[in-house]
Amino acid sequence: MAKIPHRIYLSEEQMPKQWYNLRADMKELPEPVLNPQTFKPATVEDLYPVFCEKLAQQELDDKTHYIDIPEEVQEFYKMYRPSPLIRAYNLEKYLDTPAKIYFKFEGNNTSGSHKLNSAIAQAYYAKEQGLTSLTTETGAGQWGTALSEACAYYNIPLTVFMVKCSYEQKPFRRAVIETFDAMIHPSPSTNTAAGRAILEANPNTTGSLGCAISEAVEKAVTTEGCKYVLGSVLNQVLLHQSIIGEECKIAMEMFDEYPDVIVGCAGGGSNLGGLIAPFMRDKLTGKANPRMVAVEPASCPSLTRGRYAYDFCDTGKITPLAKMYTLGCEYVPSANHAGGLRYHGMSPILSKLYHDGYMEAISVEQTKVFEAAVLFAKQETILPAPESAHAILGAIQEAQKCKETGEAKTILFGLTGTGYFDMTAYDSYRSGKMSDYIPTDEDLQKGFHGLPKIPGIQE
Amino acid sequence: MAKIPHRIYLSEEQMPKQWYNLRADMKELPEPVLNPQTFKPATVEDLYPVFCEKLAQQELDDKTHYIDIPEEVQEFYKMYRPSPLIRAYNLEKYLDTPAKIYFKFEGNNTSGSHKLNSAIAQAYYAKEQGLTSLTTETGAGQWGTALSEACAYYNIPLTVFMVKCSYEQKPFRRAVIETFDAMIHPSPSTNTAAGRAILEANPNTTGSLGCAISEAVEKAVTTEGCKYVLGSVLNQVLLHQSIIGEECKIAMEMFDEYPDVIVGCAGGGSNLGGLIAPFMRDKLTGKANPRMVAVEPASCPSLTRGRYAYDFCDTGKITPLAKMYTLGCEYVPSANHAGGLRYHGMSPILSKLYHDGYMEAISVEQTKVFEAAVLFAKQETILPAPESAHAILGAIQEAQKCKETGEAKTILFGLTGTGYFDMTAYDSYRSGKMSDYIPTDEDLQKGFHGLPKIPGIQE
Repeated sequence: MAKIPHRIYLSEEQMPKQWYNLRADMKELPEPVLNPQTFKPATVEDLYPVFCEKLAQQELDDKTHYIDIPEEVQEFYKMYRPSPLIRAYNLEKYLDTPAKIYFKFEGNNTSGSHKLNSAIAQAYYAKEQGLTSLTTETGAGQWGTALSEACAYYNIPLTVFMVKCSYEQKPFRRAVIETFDAMIHPSPSTNTAAGRAILEANPNTTGSLGCAISEAVEKAVTTEGCKYVLGSVLNQVLLHQSIIGEECKIAMEMFDEYPDVIVGCAGGGSNLGGLIAPFMRDKLTGKANPRMVAVEPASCPSLTRGRYAYDFCDTGKITPLAKMYTLGCEYVPSANHAGGLRYHGMSPILSKLYHDGYMEAISVEQTKVFEAAVLFAKQETILPAPESAHAILGAIQEAQKCKETGEAKTILFGLTGTGYFDMTAYDSYRSGKMSDYIPTDEDLQKGFHGLPKIPGIQE
Repeated sequence: MAKIPHRIYLSEEQMPKQWYNLRADMKELPEPVLNPQTFKPATVEDLYPVFCEKLAQQELDDKTHYIDIPEEVQEFYKMYRPSPLIRAYNLEKYLDTPAKIYFKFEGNNTSGSHKLNSAIAQAYYAKEQGLTSLTTETGAGQWGTALSEACAYYNIPLTVFMVKCSYEQKPFRRAVIETFDAMIHPSPSTNTAAGRAILEANPNTTGSLGCAISEAVEKAVTTEGCKYVLGSVLNQVLLHQSIIGEECKIAMEMFDEYPDVIVGCAGGGSNLGGLIAPFMRDKLTGKANPRMVAVEPASCPSLTRGRYAYDFCDTGKITPLAKMYTLGCEYVPSANHAGGLRYHGMSPILSKLYHDGYMEAISVEQTKVFEAAVLFAKQETILPAPESAHAILGAIQEAQKCKETGEAKTILFGLTGTGYFDMTAYDSYRSGKMSDYIPTDEDLQKGFHGLPKIPGIQE
């Protein structure tokens, strides 16, 4: 076996030329998405008013194992990929663990995260279809940044609805998005009926991802030549993000390595779904049996404390209904939660895999997340995004278990992005002003009361 | 010849194990640094009160061609190096130029710039000598970030004096530096005699790098076990930064490429000196004859409009005197200059090479620099630091010349860092509020009046 270097890069020839569609190997498929008017499984035509056609097809395609990455997208990927697979030698040493810790680092591009992998694909298909504009929402701002970058590349006008509290707390995120020529509105805004309705019901709302989605979808369906794109949750997004896991698997194979446990942060599931994809394929086809752990914030614990139920993807209740782990589309995590991953639901694919026992999930408190983030930054020279730091904490906990048991396990985690735009939260942590929020069962009940009633399916 | 990929990474085995000391190959050496009391060439003992011993020795060593990189520093380098050499295919296409454009990207680490290359070396030597604390100054904040990261790694307490206007304009830079446990003061501060004197003379000053250096040096020489470290200008820093050029040369050789012209931004010269080092070796030894172009801001034009004279490295006039291109140690660029590279002087090595005709220099206005930065970000997915964008503009101008002449030249430039902490400046550019400042000859005369008089050497 060759000596394992600190950082492993694939050559361009080794880079995957296809995305992997995990659903094609699932024993049981996720429940179908429902048309919110008819409560019938959504057809591809049902999705065309909202989504670009190719993306709508990808959304419903649960048969094709591998989908070719368009050549233009492959070329774009080469500008910032392959992303490195890094052996965290210093962290291992600091933790004094027999475990080997690897992480796949997706922060080496202007968007600062893995989000660009899907953004450029979605912008490409939009251009191909001749669309004249796009809309989206963004929470922490990573997706908005990535999509604005992709749209600038293809000269597609973009409107971004940014969750109001993020818009106000992160002026520099806004500035980056505007640098890439996107139009940006704090959400809820008065630009849409959904926004106005939410503002009327709750004038002081700080906004939520679900609410921003409502606004972006409304603008898309009411604007000629305009479609909506989303950076997480959807099947198409997990498909594009499979590039993360596929690269990772090849890089590990070069050194005869295979993860015993894979750890990823989980908000809507885009990174985690992409990272685990090829390893889950091995698990589903009986070739290997790695553990996979989703790490979510204690303030927004959709997998660990949510319901597996049909729900809207947005707060305004205009999107199709997906069967997923959810806290209810009206659930808004406490404003003191700075650690991202604030979405009420979870990717239907991951929800199903979790429900069927293929995955584990834990929830963690944000002060512990920031503690792990600072430790990691000092040991490994990368200042992580708070979202990514959930995975760091999860990996550290696994490594500490190895120290107790003496097992030299191979741990792989996804480091989705950098924290350059999160310094307000880091400041708050460092000065001791950060607190944790764990919703009570009562808080959660309120969210569950908002779950939709679907005759014959969900009463 | 193998197909040239978008990004070229060396393997760990290929990474340079020695720094290259350019002075050992110079036909004529830079003039010696002078002791500011005696006006005699400074001895290594003269430097010991300020600098760590190994670094003082490196500062004066003009004979040793190659100096081994300590193994611990090599290991640290492996956490974020090799940095990629990237072919800017999209930029080439956009410019419709026959030129091939390469850039060496040094922004892929938390410090966000090349500064970490020297910071970790300096922290290592300080630890080896048993020092108990360090001081430094920082302007735009990249050096302060890099050094705080290196000091956190070695558990060395660090005090950073940050130029006041940057401290106020870049709260998130401060936050990163504090995240790595450094103590940070806006400069001029009341913590030092130098700071108090400057404040008394000019209570509303926004600070300057020269002033922050005075404060940091004073604190070092008056604190037991404490030394001062600097991120640019010095010979030792250029030595450490030679890792940039050495990696670059190997990477280009892998594809039978050699630059016809090398472009770098120039403030104190740390990046440019490191990038050109091995190519200048070829030039000095007659093996090749690439052009080398320093790009500096029109607001702080030390090479293009400064004097080649002995001057203090700091505003408080307590450091040794160096013969360099300088605007006078009291020169402060207009506060409306947001583009960095605000130092009054220039590396003595680069000054000498420029003086002897081995290098060219141009100065550019900041609005044009930001225009190039935004163009580059849209084409190449990297949002550059304003400082780095000077080199982008220089490279674009070279590529445009190639378009006119039809020559397929190979252009190499240094992309020193990312602009995540510079969004206020980007906002100002985008909203049309940014203006250019070009000092008049009269403005410059004021700076030159402050040049020291040295009996028999500089009257």
